[in-house]
Amino acid sequence: MDAIINSVGRKIPEEIDGRKLKPYQGAFSTAPEPWKAPMKAGFIKPGESKILASLEESIKKTGLTDGMTVSFHHHLRNGDGVINMVMDAIAQMGIKNIRIFPTALFPVHEHLIPHIESGVITSIEGSMNGPVGAAATYGILPKCAVLRSHGGRIRAIHSGDVKVDVAFLAASSADPYGNCNGVFGPNFFGPVGLARADAMFGEHVVIVTDNLVEYPCYPISISQKYVDYVVEVPSIGDHAGIVSGTTEVTKDPKQLAMAEQIVKLIEQSGLLKEGMSFQAGAGGVSLASMKVLHDYMREKGIHGNFAIGGTTKYLVDMLRDGTIRVLLTGQSFDLESIESIAKDYGHQEITTDFYANIHNKGCAVNWLDVVILGATEVDVDFNVNVNTHSDGKLLHGIGGHQDTAAGAKLTIIVCPLFRKKIPIVRESVTTVTTPGETVDAIVTNEGIAINPRRQDLVKKLQESDLPIRKIEDLQKQAYEITGGPPELVTTDRIIALIEYRDGSIIDVVRGLKKDS
Amino acid sequence: MDAIINSVGRKIPEEIDGRKLKPYQGAFSTAPEPWKAPMKAGFIKPGESKILASLEESIKKTGLTDGMTVSFHHHLRNGDGVINMVMDAIAQMGIKNIRIFPTALFPVHEHLIPHIESGVITSIEGSMNGPVGAAATYGILPKCAVLRSHGGRIRAIHSGDVKVDVAFLAASSADPYGNCNGVFGPNFFGPVGLARADAMFGEHVVIVTDNLVEYPCYPISISQKYVDYVVEVPSIGDHAGIVSGTTEVTKDPKQLAMAEQIVKLIEQSGLLKEGMSFQAGAGGVSLASMKVLHDYMREKGIHGNFAIGGTTKYLVDMLRDGTIRVLLTGQSFDLESIESIAKDYGHQEITTDFYANIHNKGCAVNWLDVVILGATEVDVDFNVNVNTHSDGKLLHGIGGHQDTAAGAKLTIIVCPLFRKKIPIVRESVTTVTTPGETVDAIVTNEGIAINPRRQDLVKKLQESDLPIRKIEDLQKQAYEITGGPPELVTTDRIIALIEYRDGSIIDVVRGLKKDS
Repeated sequence: MDAIINSVGRKIPEEIDGRKLKPYQGAFSTAPEPWKAPMKAGFIKPGESKILASLEESIKKTGLTDGMTVSFHHHLRNGDGVINMVMDAIAQMGIKNIRIFPTALFPVHEHLIPHIESGVITSIEGSMNGPVGAAATYGILPKCAVLRSHGGRIRAIHSGDVKVDVAFLAASSADPYGNCNGVFGPNFFGPVGLARADAMFGEHVVIVTDNLVEYPCYPISISQKYVDYVVEVPSIGDHAGIVSGTTEVTKDPKQLAMAEQIVKLIEQSGLLKEGMSFQAGAGGVSLASMKVLHDYMREKGIHGNFAIGGTTKYLVDMLRDGTIRVLLTGQSFDLESIESIAKDYGHQEITTDFYANIHNKGCAVNWLDVVILGATEVDVDFNVNVNTHSDGKLLHGIGGHQDTAAGAKLTIIVCPLFRKKIPIVRESVTTVTTPGETVDAIVTNEGIAINPRRQDLVKKLQESDLPIRKIEDLQKQAYEITGGPPELVTTDRIIALIEYRDGSIIDVVRGLKKDS
Repeated sequence: MDAIINSVGRKIPEEIDGRKLKPYQGAFSTAPEPWKAPMKAGFIKPGESKILASLEESIKKTGLTDGMTVSFHHHLRNGDGVINMVMDAIAQMGIKNIRIFPTALFPVHEHLIPHIESGVITSIEGSMNGPVGAAATYGILPKCAVLRSHGGRIRAIHSGDVKVDVAFLAASSADPYGNCNGVFGPNFFGPVGLARADAMFGEHVVIVTDNLVEYPCYPISISQKYVDYVVEVPSIGDHAGIVSGTTEVTKDPKQLAMAEQIVKLIEQSGLLKEGMSFQAGAGGVSLASMKVLHDYMREKGIHGNFAIGGTTKYLVDMLRDGTIRVLLTGQSFDLESIESIAKDYGHQEITTDFYANIHNKGCAVNWLDVVILGATEVDVDFNVNVNTHSDGKLLHGIGGHQDTAAGAKLTIIVCPLFRKKIPIVRESVTTVTTPGETVDAIVTNEGIAINPRRQDLVKKLQESDLPIRKIEDLQKQAYEITGGPPELVTTDRIIALIEYRDGSIIDVVRGLKKDS
């Protein structure tokens, strides 16, 4: 198979599973083709009902059959019950060879593995957090998986690269016409913005809810005008599963020190000022940096124009006391912050298209001053891996990582120098998720590296009291302490493509042998 | 020219201005073709500005040239300054042969007549209220005009029937990326829902505002992701012009009596009950009926699920005291009701697509129990004219008339028996706007006629104390008092098509001689 070296030095095959691949050539090198996906017409007369008695009936009515693509959103995260339920029904009906197109899978979706083994699911395009990703690494899927960022996934739908045959979309409240939201009902889960494009462009759209309300549902996050059918089920899952340990602020003094350094870095870069904007991930240090930033802004009387979430109670606190004017929420990471959507003026639910699509007429990440992101690995070219661990296992999705890094004026990656005797700062990352050209600073527990591409920033920090170090020095220290990275023995088979947000391929993930 | 008789008995030519016409065949006879209009990709990099210095610059940048289609919304109604301003700029730049595609024109747009005379504007597809409509009747436009309902216009965009080259959209608040709303700023005008499809499918989209705010504008009614350019102008018009005399409740005792009868009719039809829904026009009797209905519901403790506006302060009062749960606003007819959008929980801004598009997967009019609408004429087949006067002048648009009549369980038309010695209840309307098959009752000052197609309703009202009369009797009485309708002498030329909401042609309007 012929391969091309892309601009981050990774070998990309010309074609895989019949798809011609376009190698990554730079963060803003790929202009869009004209979009091809039209929205879907319908013809629902007054008095006609969209309510169906069961998922099985919806599968029949939508004409779902072998070889089709089925989509889902992950707002319920590890509390989701809908994906498993729908795939069980599809499997029971004897349908095979389904491509699933979830925004993300979580450990709870380990339940799908038997459906992969039996040939019901033959392809997954979407983030795979945990067991399904591990199984994919060992070659369980007949077809190569595709991982996309939030913005990249929406781009793929709009452009027509991925056509959704049937979208099964969980709603915590829905009316009989399919107007729905995620902010009310026993399993309220937040915005439904990850799924808007699936609703708009899906050939068939089924809303799955455990809280059927009278028409019209209020507020309306996904509109009736996109919805074919509504199915009421006993439960869409358990929204307690939304919350993970990473939504609590760290108490580790070393991590708190890093959080202090991050805020200092923002301040010394000149971005900590009236009207600023930021996003931070849900990791312990990131959250701690939000708290430090909040205190700093309050103390100095600085007001931000907006923050983007992955929203937690910490951002809601900032909205409530006026530290930020608007809170743009694409996903909710705790229940307190969901309750805020319906209550707090200035708390705006957004779609991933609004948030991060590189090929619409302008996305919100372009307005970010600062983003603080995590990493499983970083390298001396400032490339970041968030998908695989150093053992080669594909265990995480991309989320908004590529999107925010490309958009923000200051992209800060925070990671330790090493974890469990494995160096995190490396000569070369196992997998490139986010290209170094979009990363400005790497904050570790042993110092901060500034990307030499950002000479303006290097100069600004010349007199800084921050522990600024060369990335190569950090890498060497990491190798000295750990003895260097473990050797990675992969198979030849490519088990996943890492798409860049513009649809080009930034890296591939190769399989592992079962006994490795 | 060959012609076909459509199902309301009107002669429709096979073709006009190169467009093949489909004759109206019944309210739900025309299924949609698959939609063909894709949304537009873009490629805006971080730091790129959308702000242009002038309308002229936006005309140049969008490549606007001879023969193109330019669209506008009418939320500012008779206070709009944007259409005149943009067309002046287009005219000054020497561009000719423009098709304008406004949602509606008002008397203030008489200003456009010189641009029609000089060949800058050669075609108008949109409602023409007042002088431009009158001028069109006298043959000023080289091409045949097209009038569409709210739902029909949005259907035409989605289906690809009308392609918008450049949309110039007024916003009372907008940020530099084009996020905008109509609820803040010196000329706040309400929702921007009439224009959402223009933004989504317009090849180029220019937001025109007199209130540029910091990013992100909040709330967001039209998203940055659809917007190419933002132009700040000294003024988008004068929002005082939104309010017309028809937003005040009548004090005429005869009209108040009709309002009482309307509410009695709703009650006797069995629809006045918990969970009901309704819409009423902004005419004096309609508004009075809302007040009577409000009092009745409050007294009996009945709560409605929703009302749809054309919103006035009377509907806002109903929302505020809990008489209705949700208020869906497509347009605002007074300033008090606009202020409510940003303030009142349950007050939802809607798009015309959500409201009334027959060919999406379900529109809100399908859930209406009752709609109360006006007429310039009605006839013994229950057909309704809202476009022309009996003198043949095209003076009004369709609005949501066809849409709500087709959707609601009970469609009530309210009109006097005659106006200024001209019979309003006639053997045959001058122009069919809304087909009789979608009309259930006509309430006049001399009695109420029930459509015999609705035998269920006729039976329900057998014991009624309401003055139920045959439509033919009302018509005869009208002719006796007035001496019958004036003779209408038209030219052979068709100056406007009246489209039904499904894209078929329900009637045509012929021109008048200047001296007639």
